Amino acid sequence: MTVVEHDGRIVVIDVGLRFPTPEMVGIDLVLPDFSYLRERAREIEAIVVTHGHEDHLGALPWVLRDLREQGADPPVYGGALTLAMARSKLEEHKLKEVQLNDVQAGEAFELGPFELELIHMTHSIPDSSAVALGTELGTVLITGDYKFDQTPVDGAPADVSRLAELGREGVLLLCGDSTNVDRPGFSPSESLVGPHLEEVFARCEGRIVVTSFASNIHRVQQVIDAAAALERKVGLVGRSMRKNVAIGRSLGHVEVPDGLLVGVREIEDFPDDRIVILSTGSQGEPLSALRRMAYRDHPQVKLHEGDTVVFSATPVPGNERAVNETIDRLFHIGCDVVTSNDAPVHASGHGYAEEVKLMLNLVKPRYVMPFHGDFKRLRLHAQLAEAVGVEPQCVFQGDNGLPLDIDARGRARFGAAEQAGMVFVDGVEIGDVADVALRDRRMLSADGIFIVVATIAEQDGRSVSAPEVIFRGVPFMDEADELVEEIKSTVEASLARAAGEEIREIDLLQQLLHDDLARLVYDRLRRRPMVLPVVVEV
Amino acid sequence: MTVVEHDGRIVVIDVGLRFPTPEMVGIDLVLPDFSYLRERAREIEAIVVTHGHEDHLGALPWVLRDLREQGADPPVYGGALTLAMARSKLEEHKLKEVQLNDVQAGEAFELGPFELELIHMTHSIPDSSAVALGTELGTVLITGDYKFDQTPVDGAPADVSRLAELGREGVLLLCGDSTNVDRPGFSPSESLVGPHLEEVFARCEGRIVVTSFASNIHRVQQVIDAAAALERKVGLVGRSMRKNVAIGRSLGHVEVPDGLLVGVREIEDFPDDRIVILSTGSQGEPLSALRRMAYRDHPQVKLHEGDTVVFSATPVPGNERAVNETIDRLFHIGCDVVTSNDAPVHASGHGYAEEVKLMLNLVKPRYVMPFHGDFKRLRLHAQLAEAVGVEPQCVFQGDNGLPLDIDARGRARFGAAEQAGMVFVDGVEIGDVADVALRDRRMLSADGIFIVVATIAEQDGRSVSAPEVIFRGVPFMDEADELVEEIKSTVEASLARAAGEEIREIDLLQQLLHDDLARLVYDRLRRRPMVLPVVVEV
Repeated sequence: MTVVEHDGRIVVIDVGLRFPTPEMVGIDLVLPDFSYLRERAREIEAIVVTHGHEDHLGALPWVLRDLREQGADPPVYGGALTLAMARSKLEEHKLKEVQLNDVQAGEAFELGPFELELIHMTHSIPDSSAVALGTELGTVLITGDYKFDQTPVDGAPADVSRLAELGREGVLLLCGDSTNVDRPGFSPSESLVGPHLEEVFARCEGRIVVTSFASNIHRVQQVIDAAAALERKVGLVGRSMRKNVAIGRSLGHVEVPDGLLVGVREIEDFPDDRIVILSTGSQGEPLSALRRMAYRDHPQVKLHEGDTVVFSATPVPGNERAVNETIDRLFHIGCDVVTSNDAPVHASGHGYAEEVKLMLNLVKPRYVMPFHGDFKRLRLHAQLAEAVGVEPQCVFQGDNGLPLDIDARGRARFGAAEQAGMVFVDGVEIGDVADVALRDRRMLSADGIFIVVATIAEQDGRSVSAPEVIFRGVPFMDEADELVEEIKSTVEASLARAAGEEIREIDLLQQLLHDDLARLVYDRLRRRPMVLPVVVEV
Repeated sequence: MTVVEHDGRIVVIDVGLRFPTPEMVGIDLVLPDFSYLRERAREIEAIVVTHGHEDHLGALPWVLRDLREQGADPPVYGGALTLAMARSKLEEHKLKEVQLNDVQAGEAFELGPFELELIHMTHSIPDSSAVALGTELGTVLITGDYKFDQTPVDGAPADVSRLAELGREGVLLLCGDSTNVDRPGFSPSESLVGPHLEEVFARCEGRIVVTSFASNIHRVQQVIDAAAALERKVGLVGRSMRKNVAIGRSLGHVEVPDGLLVGVREIEDFPDDRIVILSTGSQGEPLSALRRMAYRDHPQVKLHEGDTVVFSATPVPGNERAVNETIDRLFHIGCDVVTSNDAPVHASGHGYAEEVKLMLNLVKPRYVMPFHGDFKRLRLHAQLAEAVGVEPQCVFQGDNGLPLDIDARGRARFGAAEQAGMVFVDGVEIGDVADVALRDRRMLSADGIFIVVATIAEQDGRSVSAPEVIFRGVPFMDEADELVEEIKSTVEASLARAAGEEIREIDLLQQLLHDDLARLVYDRLRRRPMVLPVVVEV
């Protein structure tokens, strides 16, 4: 999420989310902390979305709902496919009457003190754009995710001439995608993937399963074309695959020959050498179609020896283990597996170092702020900028929440950090669960929990029934009657001691029991499960 | 762990462990399930360890302790360094009087019905061996982990002539390492790493931190040599680094010039360009020295801009995320980072496809059983065996616990599967925690826990004090007084209903409360925390 502010008005570029890492126990999604916007809700002129990927669009329902609570309802701008994806997302969240304004790339228009123009770019989803925001101080250009694909599948390369024109007119600030700055050279064209897929398909005698990102609609098209060329039918498996193909067809991004698609229940009716299955699950996601096939758990598709699975995608960093597990299960049931290490069946959607340099040379910005990358990539991007002649003092390596202030005389420097970071979504709620709940969950997941319930008489604090001991997530306790007995007698002893010392306050009693029991449990198990004493007074 | 059995006697080759994956919540270590050995403890002639890595040696204390409980105390055989590492491990576990028998590679001797010989191999730790077990049916050759390094750092290449001799004499079965069968060609020699390290060092003006596996003693030697050549001192950081260098020096595997090493507290006394820090943490391990440096949390070493960190190791599969996080924190504090993607500062210890073929051609086994790899690698290894002329029906792709039976006439086939798999170590205990405790921990870590304590009168089942509601790991509950009140009134209502229906059995009451409360909590939170009602009768 990038915020551009001028003359008291705000344009927000992209509202993405990320997926949690394993240490974010039990968290479903991670949103950007948009407190800054909440406090300035009424200053927001518009939200502009560069393309339809989750990491640029996924937080939209949460942001819009939150802004509405502040009494603001900003319009959303983007390309037609991008807005179709936004609409589908908003419907899932039952968010109605959002103003979604379809923008044609190349058509500039006024938005408060800004002039907004989308510039057509190429990426791993159609309808991707860079965003130019003109102000009286100059133009800010935000690249979105891009590559310079000279032969894209739909025949519409990035609008380099418009970028060059903007560069000639003068760009004040370029915020550029850093994803692949560490790869030398130029990324391969998406249209090179199709022939390689067809080559791989031609060698297969059994069924073919291709897995890819469902939103990579040009990849889907190329799989369909390769299947058609080899007279195989295509079955779409996985909810998001069917949904995205439907959206892509309705907007003319996918062309499917009549009769080529078969329903998921019909797949098993076709001979193995007459079918291609196009499936979700390229990242090894736990409940995805491919993962279920690999574990022989898919209701409609049963894979077997002689089938070939083509990974037309690479693992997103962090997903390597899940992907490798899926691949190994596929080998175990006798499938062949083809990945981008075996054949060029994937092309990245992000430009490599030479493309980043080309962008810098086209746009000739006064200031550069690399974004969309980890600290390493921001640094490498800065080095590329210096390599093409940007002055080092004009390159700003930022951090989330750190505003770049450009004054009326065009001088730029970092301002004071604003609140920013991550906000967790847990079930339907969002908020700052980071601290106590996550620490508790980590403790519970590491060693489990002991709950001890003691009942004391209100009059004299003596124990009125035998303590209850309950444990969950603590191993080897089936045989541990002895430890349970020890816990019970420790509780009785602690309560007796407390009664003797006239300690009657429930909180104090619970603290006392906790300390005595935690010591005992650690001594016996050499683990530190959560120990939770409950004292009930009757 | 490999078990070779002949004439009622057993030789065990290697006793490794693995580290848990994130879904093994709270588990410390994973051992092989050695129930098969436990039942046959007295038949064990010996345990032979091929080299000193954790995945070949790490389970030794648990296996030995368990066999002792069965009244057996088998001797352990291996090279001098391997046994030094075993000894240090056994001391940590306070296991005394284990017979550790130092074996010279190339010297054959009798072990019950077997003839045992270690064959010197090269790997990423000195003193690595293959194991030849001669029997009256023929010889079984177990490669251990190996590469054919023609120019190893210590000048002692793998004993190819002995392997060839065994091949000429006839080998019945080859069990071969499959780790790098998917890499074409020949692995680079370890001795190529040193000059590249020196090149990288020569370009550095600040401090240099090199991280590598502490057991890779030849790598340590090369770091020391490169530092000495550039007149930098060397500081060893991390417990296992200091321990392994000490063991390596005592056995003559590491030579350190006088005065080169400096203590960890002296590091900050030397100018940045006069010091190399050799550190643990190449895998991004949470408490490792490098990780702490990256998070500015190391008590002695404070990294800063201008320092360079060299990763002289690659991430073990599954560790990519932790390694990338460490690297990015280093970039954040301004360090430069050099990995094997930037310069050849690492060489794998496992042979590539051509080396695996060379092994097969040297040994000319009748049967081949690929091991030490996932299903994918076992398959690729089998394909390599067929490529060099082994008959497909003589290649056995096994699975853990699946015995290969070779009869008196030399015919081989898989027998019935024996108990095998993983056993978890949790604290001091080992055992089958997989089922209930892990499921509970996963549930607790996903959504937390609600505990509700209700107190009822023994006479009539009516509630005698207000229910207690306690939650842990459930987020957003600070403001949820309302939900707590709803829970309490649900408890009262359920108890009243139960009293009306004369339900008095505690288990039934708890079940009833559980169902009512779980429904309420799911309805309000859209999460499924563990709901644990405790009914106390007074």
